[in-house]
Amino acid sequence: MNTPTRIDQALKFAIASTEAETAPPLLAEAIRYSVFPGGARIRPRLCLAVASACGDDRPMLTDAAAASIELLHCASLAHDDLPCFDDAATRRGLPSVHKKYGEALAVLAGDALIVSAFEILAKASLAKPSRLPSLMMIVGQASGMPSGIAAGQGWESETKIDLEAYHQAKTGSLFAGATMAGAAAAGADFLQWREFGQRIGSAYQAADDIKDVVSPPDEIGKPVGQDAAHHRPSIVEDLGVEGAVDRLKDLIAGALAAIPDCPGKDPLRELIVAETKRFVPKGLSTQAA
Amino acid sequence: MNTPTRIDQALKFAIASTEAETAPPLLAEAIRYSVFPGGARIRPRLCLAVASACGDDRPMLTDAAAASIELLHCASLAHDDLPCFDDAATRRGLPSVHKKYGEALAVLAGDALIVSAFEILAKASLAKPSRLPSLMMIVGQASGMPSGIAAGQGWESETKIDLEAYHQAKTGSLFAGATMAGAAAAGADFLQWREFGQRIGSAYQAADDIKDVVSPPDEIGKPVGQDAAHHRPSIVEDLGVEGAVDRLKDLIAGALAAIPDCPGKDPLRELIVAETKRFVPKGLSTQAA
Repeated sequence: MNTPTRIDQALKFAIASTEAETAPPLLAEAIRYSVFPGGARIRPRLCLAVASACGDDRPMLTDAAAASIELLHCASLAHDDLPCFDDAATRRGLPSVHKKYGEALAVLAGDALIVSAFEILAKASLAKPSRLPSLMMIVGQASGMPSGIAAGQGWESETKIDLEAYHQAKTGSLFAGATMAGAAAAGADFLQWREFGQRIGSAYQAADDIKDVVSPPDEIGKPVGQDAAHHRPSIVEDLGVEGAVDRLKDLIAGALAAIPDCPGKDPLRELIVAETKRFVPKGLSTQAA
Repeated sequence: MNTPTRIDQALKFAIASTEAETAPPLLAEAIRYSVFPGGARIRPRLCLAVASACGDDRPMLTDAAAASIELLHCASLAHDDLPCFDDAATRRGLPSVHKKYGEALAVLAGDALIVSAFEILAKASLAKPSRLPSLMMIVGQASGMPSGIAAGQGWESETKIDLEAYHQAKTGSLFAGATMAGAAAAGADFLQWREFGQRIGSAYQAADDIKDVVSPPDEIGKPVGQDAAHHRPSIVEDLGVEGAVDRLKDLIAGALAAIPDCPGKDPLRELIVAETKRFVPKGLSTQAA
């Protein structure tokens, strides 16, 4: 089964588990809407790629790990778009969750997705729970406090921002979670995989900052100029577009250099080279490739 | 160690894990504020009581289970008080989380508490993960969709409410989670404990509906008359105060009758009789006791 199909099936299984005849129908709809149709699914792709490079000896657990990471990402988007955060009206080219279902259901959809991210790990571990505690710790660290996505969003409420901690928590944490969860699902030494994930995350964040300035809104499916509008730190503000693209190239090279030794190191490297090309906005792709 | 101390220590350990020098300070404060000072801690008390009745052979795991249930409860309160839900300015006699820290940090505090509720189960299971999948499924079912607290809050966004599903999800689910988690932490057959928890939850909900009508605000630490103000279904609206108190007595008797056979059945029964006396507003206590 190819990677997009594996991810899609794992997410559909997770979402189906949140639905039942006795469930409130609008919230069930809002949850599904938060997850489908998705974006590039870049974090679960990364998770699967690392698991494959490490042998992927428990594919069901790998699928659950990848879906867990993506559900946490979808939850953070539903909350991050709320009026009290970014107040974004669109996401992935469609109305954001609260624009379509109201704020209450957007909050609850995020809550239920966080719960679901842990539930699917448990379901995939019923027979063999030995890898479950590590997976939960990885996923928890990537999403909660003191250094996960919630921490990253939390920095935006501070008057004095620790930039390093902010970027690492807001973006790096879930990428590091994706690589570590992939390794942990395959029974590998997952701590070795943290730095690679963090570096991929930094590259992705740089690419996102650049896109926020140079892309037409219909290409990225959400409002542009949000970093400036919300006074958020941005690599483009610091280095200019050209400097930011140079930095992005360095970050991608650094990430490739951080891939730990593993049975499938070469194919993983090739995959990452191909995947990171997606990071770069169309008009700038030749410069950074 | 007595029950309140066990719960307090387990919660302090959980909250300390969300704090670090690199964490955003206001969010860290908002998380602590969401959990301390607490209310009656009735759900974790129930969890510990059931675990004790079942032998409590892994007290560290029991403590984590009890804290997990309470963290999920605190998360739901932080979100339920938000302007898009109940818009409550006070809770436990103090400003609600969003009144003190703003909406963004109240949303994130809830999110981080949900994550933490699962993380502490993982931490307490690192050496022996055999009971972890069950505990996670119990806690997930109590808090997410299709039938946990999030589902219960979700019903409040529907025009046509399934009253049975609403009450069971909004209140019953976490009480059932508390009894089942206590049993599962002690290695007992936890499914046997669902009905007892649900019945205790129904009694608690009835008591809460009554308090919402008859109590002075300084006694319950939050605004009264909220059910009517938000057009929420209430047992008092259906049966009147006297009828509701009669119903409460029946519900408590039904809960006592649903305690499964276990080594500590008699002391548990006595404890529940004593605890449920707290459910009843002061002026009405002799009627329902």
